[in-house]
Amino acid sequence: MHRGLGKGIAMAYADLTEGELESLQAQLQAEYGAVKAKGLALNMARGKPGADQLDLSLPMLAMLATADDCRAEDGTDCRNYGVLEGIPEARRLMAVLLDDTPENVIVGGNSSLTLMHDTIARFLDFGTLGSVPWAALDEVKWLCPVPGYDRHFAITEAFGLQNIPVPMTGEGPDMDAVEALAAADPAVKGIWCVPKYSNPGGVTYSDEVVRRLAALPAAAADFCIMWDNAYAVHHLSDDAAEQDTVLDIGEACRQAGNPDRYVKFASTSKVTLPGAGIAALAASPANIAEMKQRMAVATISGDKLNQLRHARFLQDAPGIAAHMARHAAILRPKFQLVDRKLAEGLAGVGECSWSKPRGGYFVSFDAPTGTAARAVQLAREAGVVMTGAGATWPGGCDPQDSNIRIAPTLPPLEELDAALDVFVLCVKLAYLEKLLDQK
Amino acid sequence: MHRGLGKGIAMAYADLTEGELESLQAQLQAEYGAVKAKGLALNMARGKPGADQLDLSLPMLAMLATADDCRAEDGTDCRNYGVLEGIPEARRLMAVLLDDTPENVIVGGNSSLTLMHDTIARFLDFGTLGSVPWAALDEVKWLCPVPGYDRHFAITEAFGLQNIPVPMTGEGPDMDAVEALAAADPAVKGIWCVPKYSNPGGVTYSDEVVRRLAALPAAAADFCIMWDNAYAVHHLSDDAAEQDTVLDIGEACRQAGNPDRYVKFASTSKVTLPGAGIAALAASPANIAEMKQRMAVATISGDKLNQLRHARFLQDAPGIAAHMARHAAILRPKFQLVDRKLAEGLAGVGECSWSKPRGGYFVSFDAPTGTAARAVQLAREAGVVMTGAGATWPGGCDPQDSNIRIAPTLPPLEELDAALDVFVLCVKLAYLEKLLDQK
Repeated sequence: MHRGLGKGIAMAYADLTEGELESLQAQLQAEYGAVKAKGLALNMARGKPGADQLDLSLPMLAMLATADDCRAEDGTDCRNYGVLEGIPEARRLMAVLLDDTPENVIVGGNSSLTLMHDTIARFLDFGTLGSVPWAALDEVKWLCPVPGYDRHFAITEAFGLQNIPVPMTGEGPDMDAVEALAAADPAVKGIWCVPKYSNPGGVTYSDEVVRRLAALPAAAADFCIMWDNAYAVHHLSDDAAEQDTVLDIGEACRQAGNPDRYVKFASTSKVTLPGAGIAALAASPANIAEMKQRMAVATISGDKLNQLRHARFLQDAPGIAAHMARHAAILRPKFQLVDRKLAEGLAGVGECSWSKPRGGYFVSFDAPTGTAARAVQLAREAGVVMTGAGATWPGGCDPQDSNIRIAPTLPPLEELDAALDVFVLCVKLAYLEKLLDQK
Repeated sequence: MHRGLGKGIAMAYADLTEGELESLQAQLQAEYGAVKAKGLALNMARGKPGADQLDLSLPMLAMLATADDCRAEDGTDCRNYGVLEGIPEARRLMAVLLDDTPENVIVGGNSSLTLMHDTIARFLDFGTLGSVPWAALDEVKWLCPVPGYDRHFAITEAFGLQNIPVPMTGEGPDMDAVEALAAADPAVKGIWCVPKYSNPGGVTYSDEVVRRLAALPAAAADFCIMWDNAYAVHHLSDDAAEQDTVLDIGEACRQAGNPDRYVKFASTSKVTLPGAGIAALAASPANIAEMKQRMAVATISGDKLNQLRHARFLQDAPGIAAHMARHAAILRPKFQLVDRKLAEGLAGVGECSWSKPRGGYFVSFDAPTGTAARAVQLAREAGVVMTGAGATWPGGCDPQDSNIRIAPTLPPLEELDAALDVFVLCVKLAYLEKLLDQK
């Protein structure tokens, strides 16, 4: 997934003399001064869709207008209380994103993050399927594939769990490490997973990784795979040959004899409208039954009118695919631009690499060791906001100070172009500072 | 609030001979048999608005259609991520329902019940403003004014708190009892309150009760008043002289030197559309700051498009009042019918009483001691579903087996009329059974 550019190419910074480095630094500092003077305000920090992507879902907004419009297919008046698990057409729709059957789906509110937070909270307060509430245990540990999603790590950290980083490979988490950690220690209760087009690396888990997760010889009987399939349908190409697929963790867990070990999550946040979408989870029948019982204490139901809007607008798997192809048409040029600008701007510099994802919302960039935080700081001071360096690690601490998440979706192409110029400049400057420090 | 009908009136059941009771029972059993044969399916169980009430908010649904429509007053594109605390116009709107300033308001999702559940969950997991997490304590007790709201009691029960019933008076909770319990025991951490048109009694707290709650000499420094102002604007009359008002608990707490002791909740569930409304809470600046920090782990924001719809549709306090007057016009005849049918049907029977609320969603009915569960069972078997007897008490256990919550809002008038006939009949039959058992 990562493409090294460095070592072999002429003029790699590491091969320059101190004098050459100083001369280059002076030249780039002059460029940087000129950039700062422009007073830019550009943002590549969060995975937010651009305005043109949001426009794709405008037809959904006014879709329901009359009382008749508000009837679900089973006759439910979606304007009134009721139906905890969601209306049938919304469960069917979300089952497509969750690769499951509608019976195993609960449609929640507007945020899969909330569903994940609340799932962990329930484990803490109540345990799961008869296990001891985790809050009653001396310690609970959680596996965090890195680089990974900062908001995942923040949930387990907030509840006092000990986040344990596990390296990502090009096929998913390093399963030797996961198996060793989970088998050795009953305090290890689960793992965060973004199985397709992972945040930020763009990695899709291989079949072997999924099967090994399902069959994990975990010491904790209530070990849970938190399966956040956030980018299930978020391909950058509408050519099926260019799209990743991932095994169903539910089926894999059943085959492995661990049928209750997973909870899957998805939302339409980056399908329709972030914050105004619908989120859902899927789990085994036993887990769903227990969750419904607990959820009934906290809510009557999600927003069924928004469920109905989504079901009518997106319809089914082909409807979703057609809609996502329109997103891809907007996003593809942005990801191509990122790759081109990085390749051109960093040609020969050395020690830089980045992902070339086939879907999702991010490019994972590895700067020379020990320079990521400085590069992000320089970019910010020049008016380009990046995700904080280290954010892709638990506690915000990347021991290599190398990984930077690039989120290219929000800015229009011309802004993205300008922001990438600044970013490349700052990566070089930070690297030069390091090399000169070492002289 | 309760009007006795019994003792003084001729032919009270308690004054009849065994023979007279048996003769009356035979006659009413014949009526009951005829009713059962009709195969009715009527429901007075939950506080759901009727379809004509839902129609009042239809103009809101298609209010946002274009990208320009989706801009908040501060320019925020409500279709994208962000703004945890809610858009300014939604905070201002909900501040009206919460009797507070917009700065102290956080707009959540579609359910105030969820906001309450999550508030209690945070107390358990994290404590509040530096206090010990309640989950770490040996026991936590919670005051539950009775009769009260079953879903409140279910939250504290689900988290393992010990619910302690406190009698309601015509002015709110019995404050002598509340003060004695809270002062004596640091394990008593809070109280559920529905301060206006309480569920089910229709009681509005007097100024003295609000001030005594605010000044409560609680042994627990982190004692919390959960102030669910669910019926803040839900009057049955649009004549201000016929509308109840309640002191602001926030102001009262500040005056009493306990500025952080309360959290207020409200929603538009029974203003616009249940399940498709917006919910909000208000609290002291210190509490709001802490809550925002914790909430940020669980969500990016509520549904800002739905916030914007609500703000544009309801506008402000006069806009809300005008809208609620339209609800009142629909609901008033239903509440009048309940009172008339009960008065006529139970005239002279004795030992029955009921509330005559000026707002809210319920009539609280007290059947002769020991007969409520039987009356509700008889009604159900005749096709009329009531809230379960005892539901208005913690654990579903009314020691008097007397209180029944009547929810007259959902059925159309003619169905309500028929359902009340059945209910009256079943109350009489259950009472007759009791009296004959005692002979």
